[in-house]
Amino acid sequence: MPELWPATHGELSYISQPPSQEWAQGKRSLTLLGSTGSIGSNTLKVVAAAPELFDIVALAGAHNVQKLAEQAARWRPRYLGVFNQAGADVLKKLLPAGYTPEIVIGAQGYARLAALPEVNTVLSAQVGAAGLRGTVAAALAGKVICLANKESLVLAGGLVRELCRRTGAVILPVDSEHNAIFQCLAGRAASHVKKIILTASGGPFRGQPRSVLAHVTREQALQHPNWSMGAKITIDSATLMNKGLEVIEAWHLYGVPLEHIGVLVHPQSLVHSLVEFHDGALMAQLGTPDMRMAIAYCAAWPHCIESGVAPLDLASAGALTFLPPDEAAFPCLALAKKVLQQGMEAAIVMNAANEVAVQRFLDKQCRFLDIPALIEAALDARPQGQQVRPLPAQCDHAVLTKAVGDILQDIENIDSSTREACAALARTL
Amino acid sequence: MPELWPATHGELSYISQPPSQEWAQGKRSLTLLGSTGSIGSNTLKVVAAAPELFDIVALAGAHNVQKLAEQAARWRPRYLGVFNQAGADVLKKLLPAGYTPEIVIGAQGYARLAALPEVNTVLSAQVGAAGLRGTVAAALAGKVICLANKESLVLAGGLVRELCRRTGAVILPVDSEHNAIFQCLAGRAASHVKKIILTASGGPFRGQPRSVLAHVTREQALQHPNWSMGAKITIDSATLMNKGLEVIEAWHLYGVPLEHIGVLVHPQSLVHSLVEFHDGALMAQLGTPDMRMAIAYCAAWPHCIESGVAPLDLASAGALTFLPPDEAAFPCLALAKKVLQQGMEAAIVMNAANEVAVQRFLDKQCRFLDIPALIEAALDARPQGQQVRPLPAQCDHAVLTKAVGDILQDIENIDSSTREACAALARTL
Repeated sequence: MPELWPATHGELSYISQPPSQEWAQGKRSLTLLGSTGSIGSNTLKVVAAAPELFDIVALAGAHNVQKLAEQAARWRPRYLGVFNQAGADVLKKLLPAGYTPEIVIGAQGYARLAALPEVNTVLSAQVGAAGLRGTVAAALAGKVICLANKESLVLAGGLVRELCRRTGAVILPVDSEHNAIFQCLAGRAASHVKKIILTASGGPFRGQPRSVLAHVTREQALQHPNWSMGAKITIDSATLMNKGLEVIEAWHLYGVPLEHIGVLVHPQSLVHSLVEFHDGALMAQLGTPDMRMAIAYCAAWPHCIESGVAPLDLASAGALTFLPPDEAAFPCLALAKKVLQQGMEAAIVMNAANEVAVQRFLDKQCRFLDIPALIEAALDARPQGQQVRPLPAQCDHAVLTKAVGDILQDIENIDSSTREACAALARTL
Repeated sequence: MPELWPATHGELSYISQPPSQEWAQGKRSLTLLGSTGSIGSNTLKVVAAAPELFDIVALAGAHNVQKLAEQAARWRPRYLGVFNQAGADVLKKLLPAGYTPEIVIGAQGYARLAALPEVNTVLSAQVGAAGLRGTVAAALAGKVICLANKESLVLAGGLVRELCRRTGAVILPVDSEHNAIFQCLAGRAASHVKKIILTASGGPFRGQPRSVLAHVTREQALQHPNWSMGAKITIDSATLMNKGLEVIEAWHLYGVPLEHIGVLVHPQSLVHSLVEFHDGALMAQLGTPDMRMAIAYCAAWPHCIESGVAPLDLASAGALTFLPPDEAAFPCLALAKKVLQQGMEAAIVMNAANEVAVQRFLDKQCRFLDIPALIEAALDARPQGQQVRPLPAQCDHAVLTKAVGDILQDIENIDSSTREACAALARTL
């Protein structure tokens, strides 16, 4: 399926063109998918800092209905999204008197909010594979997508890329590393780029050998040294799977060959990533580790707004250090690179197995090193027949929408069969 | 004289527009002023790395006639420039048989090479105040100027800025710090910029108190920890006057207010400078300390060529550290900032006094701390009547050329009377 997952890219080619002049000069009417999470909450802080630039049309959370109700009371969007009908019933009771937004539920509801005609910008910040449908709905509808859900590209980067090409949708990367790369590439031609270098904090267990990693606890793994993030991504940081996912994301986003994507461990998390150019120069983006910077860069683009992020004073920040990642002690990074060469179906399996394994670790059902072990076992046990069907080459929007629905179903089928397989595999570890 | 030295700038405003599309897409026909120096020699290495992009029309050195002859034999330019007739006579005998370039001499000769109609690009890399006439001649003639002579802006930044505006000449900064800033600003709007941050190695005496600085030797001062440069600039690095000159240069080049120009000591000289933006992000340009990177960026712009500079591997580079400059132990930096607020005439006096003091130190006629002492004495002794006349507001090219000649004469008068005054002042220290 070369169309959705090309075996090689040529030189750097962005996943999308810049947003239109009309968008750049106008007000952003926003749907926030994942508004109650870390990225969503920070986005609302950025919106509050430059309210003249934004109009909140829709807020969607999943399970934290209380927080969603508070956000809704403050911003009064016309639409709200929650996980299910029970959540919607609770939400309704929490809303202020006289404020009666339309409430939608579940994946289909989120997808509808992503494609609302009165919305020109979608923040895709749901956690994990659940975020894919929202991103794809926004891409199908030609929106500007501030993308904070890395699984959208990990599971279906080629699909998202192709949809952007066909509909004019635009991806602006909110992930701090990819956002840093985006900033380093500003004003530069693709042919200048020699290498993209993702930085990684190394997580709480940086420098530890496997013998120590075998015994680390959930609580230790949740202590990220620099970033305050959700639990899933914090564990992914500890295993380096987060960096593996980001390598795949960068591959789709910037279209550089895998061998031109590097990873550097940078314990201070102040240099958010770098780009190396053919003349020997490196451009780096630095800042206090605070997601509002990347959110503001994307949501306000091409404007530059006061994000509320504390300035970084390098004179008092201490030394910046860099070291190569230990791929032997942290096998998830190498697993992700291997999967990148195996194709889309392998990436879906890897991601599902990782989500299962991380949840098991958070539930204290497995040990830290069982996470890569379960992923590897799931990849080894992958049925040969599993395939995602291709997109039709040229078609009208209805046919395209149907084909995309089929592809999402294929992805979800592989995802759920992997989750089932993992339940059995976990017992054998 | 507000026109040549505005008391304040508003937000960042580049000294010039980008070079024309015609220049960007075509071959660069080059005059190299200062070809036998460190920057000039490195420029010829860059040209050798991408010969299809360059045509060497003129090479000009000063006293190193042997080296100029070697360069001429290799590149066969149609014009050569040397310091005086004696040098020209020696040069002629050193040239290969059958190769008979036109040889010009002295400041007028260099100015003619900078304005040759068959040249579209001038590298201005002469050392010290002597480089000003070449830069101004190139600016008057509307050339693209790769500027490595910082005195051009220190002595006459406002004049150069205004000439660029009137003739369409363009400045591309070759100085590694200003080039880094230029790269950090690529693709960004002026309104995004909060602060420009120049990095300084701190020189060989970083961290030393005045009691130690009082006794350092010429040989110690010439041991720059990171950069291989000429003697004058190496001493300027040791006193921090180099950074002071660069603050003035940045003020003219980027048009930011003085309080938005910061200096950070960065002993490793790997981060060449940074720009801070209003959203809290810092962009930094890094690389192996090698002037070919900045030269290649300017001379090849907007192309990116293999400069021959060794890639910077951050994983093996060691820690990057930053600290505030010690302006008490190294008073030249504060002197330069003060001079910036006093105007063009003070800058000319400071620069001349510094050149005299550095030469005296190199000749072992004074001690290290006598350098700032002599500069301060020269500034204190500055006659009130010294003035550079203004440019006429609107005029034809002949009147403009005449007026520029008068201004250059005024600058040279202040320069030479300062040098005379310094000879007397030095005896009183």
